[in-house]
Amino acid sequence: MMPPPRAVVAAELAMSFVATLHRKLRAGMSPAVVGLDPRVESLPALLAAEAAPAARILAFYAEVLPALAAIVPAVKPNVAFFERWGAEGYAAFEQTCRRARGLGLLVIADVKRGDIGATAEAYAEAHYAHADAITLNPLLGSDSVAPYLAHCKAGRALFVLVRTSNPSAAEFQGLELARGGDLSAALASAVDAWGRDLDEDEGYCSVGAVVGATQPGELARLRRLMPRAIILVPGVGAQGARAGDAAAAFDARGRGGLVNQSRGILQCFAPSDRDWLDRVRSAARAFARDVSAASAGAGQASAP
Amino acid sequence: MMPPPRAVVAAELAMSFVATLHRKLRAGMSPAVVGLDPRVESLPALLAAEAAPAARILAFYAEVLPALAAIVPAVKPNVAFFERWGAEGYAAFEQTCRRARGLGLLVIADVKRGDIGATAEAYAEAHYAHADAITLNPLLGSDSVAPYLAHCKAGRALFVLVRTSNPSAAEFQGLELARGGDLSAALASAVDAWGRDLDEDEGYCSVGAVVGATQPGELARLRRLMPRAIILVPGVGAQGARAGDAAAAFDARGRGGLVNQSRGILQCFAPSDRDWLDRVRSAARAFARDVSAASAGAGQASAP
Repeated sequence: MMPPPRAVVAAELAMSFVATLHRKLRAGMSPAVVGLDPRVESLPALLAAEAAPAARILAFYAEVLPALAAIVPAVKPNVAFFERWGAEGYAAFEQTCRRARGLGLLVIADVKRGDIGATAEAYAEAHYAHADAITLNPLLGSDSVAPYLAHCKAGRALFVLVRTSNPSAAEFQGLELARGGDLSAALASAVDAWGRDLDEDEGYCSVGAVVGATQPGELARLRRLMPRAIILVPGVGAQGARAGDAAAAFDARGRGGLVNQSRGILQCFAPSDRDWLDRVRSAARAFARDVSAASAGAGQASAP
Repeated sequence: MMPPPRAVVAAELAMSFVATLHRKLRAGMSPAVVGLDPRVESLPALLAAEAAPAARILAFYAEVLPALAAIVPAVKPNVAFFERWGAEGYAAFEQTCRRARGLGLLVIADVKRGDIGATAEAYAEAHYAHADAITLNPLLGSDSVAPYLAHCKAGRALFVLVRTSNPSAAEFQGLELARGGDLSAALASAVDAWGRDLDEDEGYCSVGAVVGATQPGELARLRRLMPRAIILVPGVGAQGARAGDAAAAFDARGRGGLVNQSRGILQCFAPSDRDWLDRVRSAARAFARDVSAASAGAGQASAP
């Protein structure tokens, strides 16, 4: 498969992440994201079986991404699963991002970086070079976020970890603060502040948040603290939550949320299944329908 | 320069990070670490001037690392500055780590990763493949740390972010908790707990912490909460702290701390300086002396 012509990519970039997302949703797409967490042992056995891991991963996404582009607006490649294979894996990560963008998919690079001033600038340049949005760990505070905000003003987006979906998430994120609320609430308020000066589209700006769907009560509480943030909701599927658990992320118009599923879609088949791509398409379509229902359900529940 | 024979690297790995560090300190080395944050615009102008950025970075470290190996026990490459150059930069990161280890330097990969279960396992495999120790962001809690602890049992080490050295570090890390203490104190207690079952050498185990030198009072307070953790202290030099500010990390025998400086050593020259390598050697020797004095000073201060 050839890389897309440069002009196509450039045209996609001319519109901001948030505006592009909303254009896709207005056209009827579901606010669903498919996570790309390549595990070599789960790839279709027949696909480039003799090749090196990074080449097998690329071959898999070359088949999968065109199918996904017709069903969901965005993908979320997790760089850890690519870095696992060293520099070749990192090259596969970049190539996968480029390929996805060439197909019109928004790319949310799940890098969970968080570093100070000069280092954050290096990361921002590296990751926004091939992604529309990235995830960020905010433990180091505002000056670790600032370098990314400049890119957000220019159309890129940020999803700040506010409440993760793993079992021990509450260990630190749920610590109650002396001033009231927990650490996640403090992070949510900071997300709201970081997005204050940024343009909005349909009421949302380019500084978003990651809040797991594993505790729906948390999601509703944190949503109220950052009304202009698009909330990226992981934890659906293998981590135990259902798409409906993400309903609290959405407003009455079905905006404000993006629900991610990874393993349930791109590992929905056995490596020996010959019809694996059909299974992926079916799983992605079912997931997109579930997320659409969750976002519409939120609208009905809160409609006057 | 040829890569070192496999046997040499394997022999180095046979001893744990902590034991290797202590062996070097007993032999008279200073607990000083030089940070590798490659900035292409600061490299010596005459060195591989026509080459691509990743190749120039490699050429620089090929000259610098043998000089450093005679002066300090460890280097801390920051992956962000390599990733800045994409897959080629990532390959340069791996090669720099390998070269440093081949020279007998301990490698602390400053990756500040933090992700959940399966993703953390992917990172652990990726980074311990070419580093003796890594830095970790603990915001996601114990289950994001667990995959690394298995490697720590096998001799690798971990430095968990407890209090960073940047200006906005206190924004979240300094939040006072309802149960008393701040978030950094909670993180320090967790570091102590994570290292509980691990072997120790001279009283220290392989789960360490990062605590900036920019607030010496914080360092003394946090040291008491994690008595078995080696504290890696950044923030010396360009970030405003002096080596003496790290004294509280050390015990009476001068153990328990590692002090890092980056820009002050590997950017101590102008790109046009012809004697840049001599300047690097002098800066590294002066830094090592300052750190030795800081660690000895702690010993004298707390001696009976």
